[in-house]
Amino acid sequence: MALSYRSLGIDTSYEHVIYMHAECHVCHSEGFAAQTRLEVRANGRSLIATLSIINGDLLRQDQVGLSLAAEHSLGLQTGDAVYVTHVPVLASEGLLRAKIFGQRLDRPAMQAIIADAVSGHLSELHLSAFVTACAGDRLDIDEIVALTEAMVAVGERLDWPYDVVVDKHCVGGLPGNRTTPIVVAIATACGLVMPKTSSRAITSPAGTADTMEVLTNVDLDIAAMRRVVSQTGGCLAWGGAMLLSPADDILIRVERPLDLDSDGQLIASILSKKIAAGSNRLLIDLPVGPSAKVRSVEAAERLAARLVTVGKVLGLPVHPVITDGMQPVGRGIGPALEARDVLQVLRNEPQAPADLRERAILLAGRLLEIGGRTTDGRRLAREVLTDGRAWRQFQVICEAQGGLREVPAPVLVHVVTAEQCGHVAGIDNRTLARIAKLAGAPRSAVAGLDMHVHVGERVEVGQPLFSIHAQAPGELRYAQAFLATQVLPIRLEER
Amino acid sequence: MALSYRSLGIDTSYEHVIYMHAECHVCHSEGFAAQTRLEVRANGRSLIATLSIINGDLLRQDQVGLSLAAEHSLGLQTGDAVYVTHVPVLASEGLLRAKIFGQRLDRPAMQAIIADAVSGHLSELHLSAFVTACAGDRLDIDEIVALTEAMVAVGERLDWPYDVVVDKHCVGGLPGNRTTPIVVAIATACGLVMPKTSSRAITSPAGTADTMEVLTNVDLDIAAMRRVVSQTGGCLAWGGAMLLSPADDILIRVERPLDLDSDGQLIASILSKKIAAGSNRLLIDLPVGPSAKVRSVEAAERLAARLVTVGKVLGLPVHPVITDGMQPVGRGIGPALEARDVLQVLRNEPQAPADLRERAILLAGRLLEIGGRTTDGRRLAREVLTDGRAWRQFQVICEAQGGLREVPAPVLVHVVTAEQCGHVAGIDNRTLARIAKLAGAPRSAVAGLDMHVHVGERVEVGQPLFSIHAQAPGELRYAQAFLATQVLPIRLEER
Repeated sequence: MALSYRSLGIDTSYEHVIYMHAECHVCHSEGFAAQTRLEVRANGRSLIATLSIINGDLLRQDQVGLSLAAEHSLGLQTGDAVYVTHVPVLASEGLLRAKIFGQRLDRPAMQAIIADAVSGHLSELHLSAFVTACAGDRLDIDEIVALTEAMVAVGERLDWPYDVVVDKHCVGGLPGNRTTPIVVAIATACGLVMPKTSSRAITSPAGTADTMEVLTNVDLDIAAMRRVVSQTGGCLAWGGAMLLSPADDILIRVERPLDLDSDGQLIASILSKKIAAGSNRLLIDLPVGPSAKVRSVEAAERLAARLVTVGKVLGLPVHPVITDGMQPVGRGIGPALEARDVLQVLRNEPQAPADLRERAILLAGRLLEIGGRTTDGRRLAREVLTDGRAWRQFQVICEAQGGLREVPAPVLVHVVTAEQCGHVAGIDNRTLARIAKLAGAPRSAVAGLDMHVHVGERVEVGQPLFSIHAQAPGELRYAQAFLATQVLPIRLEER
Repeated sequence: MALSYRSLGIDTSYEHVIYMHAECHVCHSEGFAAQTRLEVRANGRSLIATLSIINGDLLRQDQVGLSLAAEHSLGLQTGDAVYVTHVPVLASEGLLRAKIFGQRLDRPAMQAIIADAVSGHLSELHLSAFVTACAGDRLDIDEIVALTEAMVAVGERLDWPYDVVVDKHCVGGLPGNRTTPIVVAIATACGLVMPKTSSRAITSPAGTADTMEVLTNVDLDIAAMRRVVSQTGGCLAWGGAMLLSPADDILIRVERPLDLDSDGQLIASILSKKIAAGSNRLLIDLPVGPSAKVRSVEAAERLAARLVTVGKVLGLPVHPVITDGMQPVGRGIGPALEARDVLQVLRNEPQAPADLRERAILLAGRLLEIGGRTTDGRRLAREVLTDGRAWRQFQVICEAQGGLREVPAPVLVHVVTAEQCGHVAGIDNRTLARIAKLAGAPRSAVAGLDMHVHVGERVEVGQPLFSIHAQAPGELRYAQAFLATQVLPIRLEER
């Protein structure tokens, strides 16, 4: 029986909530209680939502409300007819339980789970159990292949009318390591095709999409992306808007609050996006350091080997590059601060961070070799960056995406100074990333950290070590309060 | 800065939701967004809630609302002052992540996680990850001991002025196996002290507390329980109201939708409740069958050995009894239908299910031996049941708890009949339990299944196999729809 829609204007982000009156006849006849998961149909579409029961006069007994995202997804307006039923029993729940108890998931099992995740039939609780059951080396190679295929299968898949389409990816864990915009500018300035889609941050203070969004529009649909790539040879777009591996975005939503990003899921996440994006040569940057995501060269080699193996099974040649991940790259950590560093490098400004510049040249050089443009990639990359071609190409890409924007000025800044003198002996990437996130990154573009020292430098008492940037006073206080409970993430030692 | 409370009357069950206006100055200055988890303080109390953002006029900009359970928990009324801040960073999140990645959790780690679970600081996502990371044999004996201790530590702990306090528990998985009310009546009629606290269903269609709630008030506080036990020697109460191992209730809330109940968590769940309830002799019934929770005698012996070991470390002698779990016990599955069977046995009615009666005599007999009342427990148990002493004692206990109630009459009944003839070769407990739950058990007391056949019986075409009982038409349809997709859970074979 139909209920009548009423817009309540309640924003619950991605979570779908349905509001029904305590005396609603459908609730009674169907036996619905608060927190029941329900299937909601309207306008020929459907979704799954969790029930909140209204006592009082926010709704009439024959009315139903939805949270904003669900309302938009079903295209509802006040007065529209809505049908509400129980969620059907899912085979994927049994498969998930089998995985939790240590059984392997085969290809149809992975497909069932990922399909139900994308349709919203599996709850956040189930997804949390899924990513946990797959973490800590509990996916073997066949399962990673099956997961990757399943993630590709539920999304769009691009194909390009070019023989060579290159892509790069960094496994992350290194704050400020924002080489991608520079690499895309260099590679495409040299004639490579590089339709770069990036994700937003998973557990870091900024993803490439968050940083690029400071500088231009990254929310391209597939048609817009094709246009930009045919005009410029490249793009720097957010992948989420394109429904390339939408399962990845859904799993990330659960992994982020758990601060969880395991090998198997990492490989499936990276490769599903790249396969869906249609690239056929993939460079992967694996920074190694005691507080980077990959902590030892052995772990990096193991991850690299698995990436190559899974890539080979799925027809995508993967070229891993293991790099130094001892300390943050550049000076900025957070969307706007990293965008500032990127522009300084592209513009060859004297204060441009040398480490970011050198990493970008290294990676772009390797890509130029993989893409068959030269046998001495670093030389060519350095030349193109130094003579301004990369900067001009970057502007061309941003203009094609909707225009190059200025980096916003800092709002609230708190400078952390040295209370003793000494040499910088170590920098804790994880604690720095945590502070940057507590300060509001990546949600607030201007939030993050500005680093004032590097490993090996001499520091005097009172000298600035890093600054915390925030948009809101509450977030600045929150980051400061956390810092006060921690060992200083810049380790100073007397020599 | 304080906001002003406004009651919105929104019931979200146990989940705490806070509602704030999109233009609220606190949201802006603190950087809160929808789905942010917040600490809410009022009237000297605090809790954690998830933010929903209100666009429109349900709230003014300086007002804040809470879901009903949170409103009650803080004792709020419209106009009261409410303070909202970020949730502090939790050490337990890092410990949980370590467990996910395969590290062991020691005693302080378990205590930190369980304390944050009980305080509501860990979200449902985190709890789902925790129970998943502990499932499938991923807790060793030391971790199970640490988890059990941590669960005892966060709750109340009863002590009794009696030398011998007995208790029993069934690991479950066998629908209709409702021996506890009968066992308590027999044991206490023979002078044993048995202050029985029971849980509600985790993954089954009814727990003992659900069934007993049909017959009497089970929602006793500790003072009421002490009074009932001192008057009668026993009680049949719901443990959840007493804050004995409240962590168990919180973990169960996550395990239920995941349909997950693993060995380590099962042992900690059982033993934490029993230690907190102050018993010093524990009988554990382990039914074994291909579709019971424990599927083989080997698995039962392994679980029994671990229960004994963990019990010994924690000072509680455990006596396991492995029983036949081939098919449901009695006829009813679901709170009211099981209560009916229990009363038939206690009243020695001719139609009383013999299997339920014999199991109760077996278990009560063993308890009488463990408790030192006799060396031939089964003989004494049978005598006390047959001569009506157990039934009189049961009435005395129910009267002390607030009065014995009638079993409610069925509401909606759908009879499933045989479409072929044959002998009943097997019964699938899991599918039956699933159907009973889809029909509304245990939430609707009258919902469940009434079994009309047992293994080995001859069945003719058209003969009733079982009936589905429901309170609401939607739930009956839902159970029927599921049954239609399944192999019939009563397997008929020609001999």
